Amino acid sequence: MGRVIIDITMSVDGFVTGPNDGPCNGLGDGGRILHDWVFKGTDADKPFLMGEGYDIGAGILGRRTFDIANEAWGDNPPMQGTVFVLTHRPHETVQRGAATFVFITDGAEATLALARDEAAGKDIMLMGADVSQQYLHMGEVDFMTLHVANVLLGEGRPLFAHIGNDLIKLECVDCVPTPSATHMQYKVTKTR
Amino acid sequence: MGRVIIDITMSVDGFVTGPNDGPCNGLGDGGRILHDWVFKGTDADKPFLMGEGYDIGAGILGRRTFDIANEAWGDNPPMQGTVFVLTHRPHETVQRGAATFVFITDGAEATLALARDEAAGKDIMLMGADVSQQYLHMGEVDFMTLHVANVLLGEGRPLFAHIGNDLIKLECVDCVPTPSATHMQYKVTKTR
Repeated sequence: MGRVIIDITMSVDGFVTGPNDGPCNGLGDGGRILHDWVFKGTDADKPFLMGEGYDIGAGILGRRTFDIANEAWGDNPPMQGTVFVLTHRPHETVQRGAATFVFITDGAEATLALARDEAAGKDIMLMGADVSQQYLHMGEVDFMTLHVANVLLGEGRPLFAHIGNDLIKLECVDCVPTPSATHMQYKVTKTR
Repeated sequence: MGRVIIDITMSVDGFVTGPNDGPCNGLGDGGRILHDWVFKGTDADKPFLMGEGYDIGAGILGRRTFDIANEAWGDNPPMQGTVFVLTHRPHETVQRGAATFVFITDGAEATLALARDEAAGKDIMLMGADVSQQYLHMGEVDFMTLHVANVLLGEGRPLFAHIGNDLIKLECVDCVPTPSATHMQYKVTKTR
């Protein structure tokens, strides 16, 4: 069965954006530095841009992430195939480039079931902090790549809020420091 | 001039203890796993136990950390020389093994000045989350070793609360993954 994967950039203090993130300020105040590894990256950063090692069959993202990112992506979203948008507000399907965004209002569990069907044994990529938290809480995450940017932001949107207090054991399977970030890859196991 | 150093273990989600930490439960509920790299460590972990690369001339810790740890340490605290205890409550000097704990009620700035005098050009080691946060906020930290344990705790005492929202740039100078933790070493620079 395909893995459920988190792949996200955070500061050393665990923020995925600076403060005041929103439309037109997707990474929040001062948060652009988080993506130095993307835009000023070295050869060591490149494999992580390409998502080497993944075989993605479907994606899941939150409505908030969609609304903020849709504007920035235009017709070139950084994914293809079916991406399920977890939302409380129904919306018709949106086609953007090679990606089809399907809005689901039945909750996280039903959305994951749909994604598993769609992925047909391939990996499922989670996008955004909120969706990542929900599936961590549910114990459904199998693999996590954290691009830990070399910065403390002090404030912003935390990656690991609301994941419950069940201990989640990690096995570090790769660790690549570059001038901008350290790329950490973990297998994820829920232990109680 | 000696460096002001943070050297602390945290979970991937940034907690230095599990929930409900206190006397007799220093690492909090489930927090013992944080120190697997200490007690079940491999040869790759050992240099970090010894504090290789440091030349410590003085220490600073918070009163709360002292009260919790003093009990566990007994006459064998893991430090020697003069350690300043930042506190609001005056207390007479405490001798434990090779360490002398001197209680200072004049605040963080005055305590750092005393520690610099005592260290005479050697490094100053900060101990505990609270003291680390205060000096990060003041822009006084030069170097940070994070032992990032392979676990998500979900709850507990956060390392990076209350550090202000000034961007703090880091330069990763070492990164050593082991089966229990990833030892990250950063030079710290305040940028605004």
